[in-house]
Amino acid sequence: MSQSVKKVVLAYSGGLDTSIILKWLQTTYGCEVVTFTADLGQGEELEPARQKALLLGIKPENIFIEDVREEFVRDYVFPMFRANAQYEGLYLLGTSIARPLIAKKQIEIAEKLGADAVSHGSTGKGNDQVRYEVAYYALKPDVTIIAPWREWDLRSREQLLKFAEDHQIPIAKDKRGEAPFSVDANLLHCSSEGKVLEDPAVEVPDYVYSRTVNPEDAPDKPTVISIDFEKGDPVAVDGVRMSPATLLTRLNELGRINGIGRLDLVENRFVGMKSRGMYETPGGTILLQAHRGIESITLDRGAAHLKDELMPKYAEIIYNGFWFSPEREMLQALIDKSQEAVTGSVRLKLYKGGVHVIGRESPYSLYSQDLVTFEEGAVAYDHRDAAGFIKLNALRLRTLGSRKRKMGI
Amino acid sequence: MSQSVKKVVLAYSGGLDTSIILKWLQTTYGCEVVTFTADLGQGEELEPARQKALLLGIKPENIFIEDVREEFVRDYVFPMFRANAQYEGLYLLGTSIARPLIAKKQIEIAEKLGADAVSHGSTGKGNDQVRYEVAYYALKPDVTIIAPWREWDLRSREQLLKFAEDHQIPIAKDKRGEAPFSVDANLLHCSSEGKVLEDPAVEVPDYVYSRTVNPEDAPDKPTVISIDFEKGDPVAVDGVRMSPATLLTRLNELGRINGIGRLDLVENRFVGMKSRGMYETPGGTILLQAHRGIESITLDRGAAHLKDELMPKYAEIIYNGFWFSPEREMLQALIDKSQEAVTGSVRLKLYKGGVHVIGRESPYSLYSQDLVTFEEGAVAYDHRDAAGFIKLNALRLRTLGSRKRKMGI
Amino acid sequence: MSQSVKKVVLAYSGGLDTSIILKWLQTTYGCEVVTFTADLGQGEELEPARQKALLLGIKPENIFIEDVREEFVRDYVFPMFRANAQYEGLYLLGTSIARPLIAKKQIEIAEKLGADAVSHGSTGKGNDQVRYEVAYYALKPDVTIIAPWREWDLRSREQLLKFAEDHQIPIAKDKRGEAPFSVDANLLHCSSEGKVLEDPAVEVPDYVYSRTVNPEDAPDKPTVISIDFEKGDPVAVDGVRMSPATLLTRLNELGRINGIGRLDLVENRFVGMKSRGMYETPGGTILLQAHRGIESITLDRGAAHLKDELMPKYAEIIYNGFWFSPEREMLQALIDKSQEAVTGSVRLKLYKGGVHVIGRESPYSLYSQDLVTFEEGAVAYDHRDAAGFIKLNALRLRTLGSRKRKMGI
Amino acid sequence: MSQSVKKVVLAYSGGLDTSIILKWLQTTYGCEVVTFTADLGQGEELEPARQKALLLGIKPENIFIEDVREEFVRDYVFPMFRANAQYEGLYLLGTSIARPLIAKKQIEIAEKLGADAVSHGSTGKGNDQVRYEVAYYALKPDVTIIAPWREWDLRSREQLLKFAEDHQIPIAKDKRGEAPFSVDANLLHCSSEGKVLEDPAVEVPDYVYSRTVNPEDAPDKPTVISIDFEKGDPVAVDGVRMSPATLLTRLNELGRINGIGRLDLVENRFVGMKSRGMYETPGGTILLQAHRGIESITLDRGAAHLKDELMPKYAEIIYNGFWFSPEREMLQALIDKSQEAVTGSVRLKLYKGGVHVIGRESPYSLYSQDLVTFEEGAVAYDHRDAAGFIKLNALRLRTLGSRKRKMGI
Repeated sequence: MSQSVKKVVLAYSGGLDTSIILKWLQTTYGCEVVTFTADLGQGEELEPARQKALLLGIKPENIFIEDVREEFVRDYVFPMFRANAQYEGLYLLGTSIARPLIAKKQIEIAEKLGADAVSHGSTGKGNDQVRYEVAYYALKPDVTIIAPWREWDLRSREQLLKFAEDHQIPIAKDKRGEAPFSVDANLLHCSSEGKVLEDPAVEVPDYVYSRTVNPEDAPDKPTVISIDFEKGDPVAVDGVRMSPATLLTRLNELGRINGIGRLDLVENRFVGMKSRGMYETPGGTILLQAHRGIESITLDRGAAHLKDELMPKYAEIIYNGFWFSPEREMLQALIDKSQEAVTGSVRLKLYKGGVHVIGRESPYSLYSQDLVTFEEGAVAYDHRDAAGFIKLNALRLRTLGSRKRKMGI
Repeated sequence: MSQSVKKVVLAYSGGLDTSIILKWLQTTYGCEVVTFTADLGQGEELEPARQKALLLGIKPENIFIEDVREEFVRDYVFPMFRANAQYEGLYLLGTSIARPLIAKKQIEIAEKLGADAVSHGSTGKGNDQVRYEVAYYALKPDVTIIAPWREWDLRSREQLLKFAEDHQIPIAKDKRGEAPFSVDANLLHCSSEGKVLEDPAVEVPDYVYSRTVNPEDAPDKPTVISIDFEKGDPVAVDGVRMSPATLLTRLNELGRINGIGRLDLVENRFVGMKSRGMYETPGGTILLQAHRGIESITLDRGAAHLKDELMPKYAEIIYNGFWFSPEREMLQALIDKSQEAVTGSVRLKLYKGGVHVIGRESPYSLYSQDLVTFEEGAVAYDHRDAAGFIKLNALRLRTLGSRKRKMGI
Repeated sequence: MSQSVKKVVLAYSGGLDTSIILKWLQTTYGCEVVTFTADLGQGEELEPARQKALLLGIKPENIFIEDVREEFVRDYVFPMFRANAQYEGLYLLGTSIARPLIAKKQIEIAEKLGADAVSHGSTGKGNDQVRYEVAYYALKPDVTIIAPWREWDLRSREQLLKFAEDHQIPIAKDKRGEAPFSVDANLLHCSSEGKVLEDPAVEVPDYVYSRTVNPEDAPDKPTVISIDFEKGDPVAVDGVRMSPATLLTRLNELGRINGIGRLDLVENRFVGMKSRGMYETPGGTILLQAHRGIESITLDRGAAHLKDELMPKYAEIIYNGFWFSPEREMLQALIDKSQEAVTGSVRLKLYKGGVHVIGRESPYSLYSQDLVTFEEGAVAYDHRDAAGFIKLNALRLRTLGSRKRKMGI
Repeated sequence: MSQSVKKVVLAYSGGLDTSIILKWLQTTYGCEVVTFTADLGQGEELEPARQKALLLGIKPENIFIEDVREEFVRDYVFPMFRANAQYEGLYLLGTSIARPLIAKKQIEIAEKLGADAVSHGSTGKGNDQVRYEVAYYALKPDVTIIAPWREWDLRSREQLLKFAEDHQIPIAKDKRGEAPFSVDANLLHCSSEGKVLEDPAVEVPDYVYSRTVNPEDAPDKPTVISIDFEKGDPVAVDGVRMSPATLLTRLNELGRINGIGRLDLVENRFVGMKSRGMYETPGGTILLQAHRGIESITLDRGAAHLKDELMPKYAEIIYNGFWFSPEREMLQALIDKSQEAVTGSVRLKLYKGGVHVIGRESPYSLYSQDLVTFEEGAVAYDHRDAAGFIKLNALRLRTLGSRKRKMGI
């Protein structure tokens, strides 16, 4: 709180917590507050956020509301899916991938308005504070960052509500009690953590899920769909060409009704602790399988295995918040280079929580039926070549084997 | 065929193809043939193989039949699952992991009997020839390897049957026609490829599956089970302690009835081509999720991420047939080192093809509710530490950002 | 020898061995032979190769001689040095990097002339046959490759000379006796192997070196030079701007007189055996140090460490002959992406076999004296941040430590 | 300064700075101070440290002085050299590898004496604070750490001297003025940084070096030595068996007189900034080359390349201070596994700053002259095998090449 701040751009959701932050910034720093509210597909109206900001004394010209869904999916989600990125083998990075975009927008507004500070509503124990702030610093190295949750002395829910009341911040009735878990949502996913989810031995209660039906309640008949890809990105569902956000919305709906994309995970946070979260990524879960499917016939082994080996690092970089880092950009260059011929169509069966690739075809397919049929003929493959191939591949192991015998080691 | 061979140990299944090979070895090389037949859990009686070998003129003392199921699961399958190994992100390596054991047994017999050669029934276009032969050479560098499918001039199904008839090899009626696909099976999995599966755009017909019910035909109620782990290996199901092979058999049964573990994959063979296969790994699919689950609370992030980064390479080594290589043994040492505290219990829900971890607990859990609760208190975590953590992590990106501004790059 | 070949493009040096190959191709395949002779900076006149080809009956329009030195350095050597590539920690890949270029030129000629085959003079135990042929196949999948050393039955030096005499191939006097070692040379390096070098316990005799003076005979005073870089590539020596090949030639001369770049190595060939070689890479050895020097102030840690981790794989790919592979191109995209700001100047001291970076500067330097001075002041760094940084980085190890204490593991 | 501390174990060198810290701990925390002084081979007498501690009021039973040279070399330096570890391609980690040992000793004393805190004399901008504290926390999770340089308000050399004078701490005459650079030393290396070294464009002045003669002043005749290895560790020099510390001392002397092991480096600190340092690692520089030499004939390619790929990560882990982490221990298990047959002898030529391997031999050598000679004969290698080896290795690139032609991509 020691820095002098003139104007701060706040990532503002319109909810109670960021409204408290808004007011706390005004009263603590005595500075002008600019709000930025993004439609990332979280499924909430944005106009109420504008009204609330006005009510809290924000000047109309300081209220920024933007629909960034297309940019989000096109420039963040799809590039990440080109890598088949999964953190710790399972998590599709739905929260991680949204933070850099929000941070970038805040910084753009700060530059335009000459604001010297930015602020966000993430707590001091999570990953999101890191993701926001690393991005802020990367894009505007001299920015001042205000992280209220780390600074203020509001130490309990009661104190927060008291502060809200003291400052005439409206409190919705259902916010009086403690929320049973905390939520993050965007077009890619919805996540929940905390409170009722904290014991990793206890199953996630069904009421926590909001994006998907319970697989047990999903239709008894499978849904078969097709997804078309061009250069690694999906462009059509069931033959209908769609914009990135529209397409992901469509996959989300297909996933939702079929109970697809639920994940109950204990993960390792960048800040050094484990946490347990619940994720719903209906469309993303379908997309991952479909992308792997089209890659399976269009990517060469050398390319595929290099991607697989680098994927965990790429996912970790994004999880940790280093989207705007040279290492992420370098890996992206490598990944994008591999996608030039990842074009074609994949058919999938969706059924009660499962996604199953059942067919794939491509004008650029590297799969050659001539090569695999047992009857000989294909000019490129002679059975006898295999003997030499094996003998030279085994040569070093034969030498090792001889050593073992001679030396008894 | 140029080498002179005195005695050859053949991997013999008792089926038509390896019976033809047996006879071909006798007639072509004029050598003594020793048969080795292993019970790997493929689900076939072994006694008929003995009778058939006798019928084909093999001396009783040259017929070796062994139940290696426990050794297979304990020394090959479980060590591999400690790594969460999946080839190309999906394949659980069911065929790959069995070959080294068979090869090792053949070499042991060859050493005992003073045989100078070994032989197998794998074709010249697949991975298995490589896996067998690389293992043979590693374990007995001076061995002679006979790969009939690469050597003989039997070029069609008709020629094979003709050879069989000419040599009084009994042909089961259902072997007269061409098989619609080829199969490999052991306790870990069953795979099929070829013929009706060759077009990767066409769905795998349901009749190809033999180890699992169709998810659509699985029970409408989920099955909830628990698996206990000790040092990375499963030791009990639903609280009942079992030997490795018994445990995997139990998981296979649980997977089978719930339609779990089907995989339709186009993969990259080591010999340079793509192939399309169908895999059923019911128990293994459950085991992978369970192992990831117990690791999620018992493995430190540093250990977990290192394992994740090295897994693709480890899987590739096994897929390519290099089980008996220094690099596999080095990686195994690394992986095994990580498993010392991977002990505890995981609960899973099995439902219509899906495996879902719903709870995990361990006496060695690294998950600490104290650390993650939002109310402060835990001595180890101070919200204000995060500020320094972020600032130093972002420092290099701030320097980069400054350079970008100054230089316009 | 079974294939029918109409026209073959031979990598022809003009020396005795490739002249024998030329004649052997004519007599064995009865085909038209096209010769390709490249000036890669090996230090030999090319006109004698033309005369010899004419003498052996090659039509003038079938003789191709090209100076490819600039292309070699610009498009192969420099991109590779952007990666700081060293095979097995030491070898600068001087032979490996030249083969793809020669192969590419042969294929271009084959396409232009409608030739159906290519041929090279590499033996059947080395890496070069692989490098040539993998490149041929990648660039012209339907090409026929003739590798005389693997095909003919000329099994000794005597037989080769006899063949030469029988076909009126002139034999230089000094070629009568057996060469004491075999040599490969181009603008990047000169290598020797075989015969007198075969025992790795015995020092390389001084007469084997041809590109460098013995360090003991080098000047007693150091030579100080500067090298300027732009986007990762060297562009000037001592302030004098030069073309790629001219610059490497200049560095070779500086290295030569100072005894720089000798390497005595036992390496692992791709074909499965170890071999002992002697390499002289005078200019390349200087360039590697200089490039690391300029990167040290212009590359961010994230970029630098990612490059370092991937370098061994990149070097192995090139060593094995997979320059024209997707994985090499993907890694190149990653590496090139990192070099955008690798611009500046490095000063080096050359002295009796040693290369020592003594200074580096750049308009894009990320080294900030403000940050490192012990007196505080720089806004970006507060000593107290370090406490939080350390505490969060150590958090997981503290949790592990607690577990160890509690559990006694 | 807020914590209450009863007893603190200080890493105490006996120099002015740690004496000031000692007194500052007493006066600020009012706690009992225990000093630990280690002989790591830094080349200073330890008895004066005892006298000084007594003079500053430390009880005799609270003064711990230990010669840890053998432990240091045997359990830290040699295991690290098994990996050929170099940070950022060049730095031999001389400072990094000593910190964990010192920390471990401090914690052992703290446990024995029931001390609740530890302290060190590293500043708030460097790596050493991290290395100490991460190790402290890993070994004693509940320890209190006091880092005076981050806590006190002594902001300049003048203030430090004033504090010393105020507290009757003796100040050597040459400590009055500002030191021209700061130094760290142990048996592996000596490093310097700061002040006169801060401009990376300016050559390191010769007077900064203390462990090596200037190469220009080294003998005009090379020194030839041999080093014997057993299981990856050096055990003898010139045939004379020595303990680890004695051996490293001997190599240091050989390196010193031949001007070997100087390094002028700009490196990336873990805390996010670049720094320029000067390192002298005479014995270590010889050892690295020798170890690579013996590995070149005793390590299989699979093992060697895996080690090379993982080395940068291993080096980074040690540099960052995570010696006592699961990932370091896992990698160590992998590395140690590879060293079982790394036994034999290497001959090296030392000359004016250069180390050149000139011969290597081993009873376990994998180098086989039979395999590499050009005349055929060795049973394991048939030239014709190479054709099949190449064709199958190239198969995927041929398929890619065909695609490129067909599709024009």
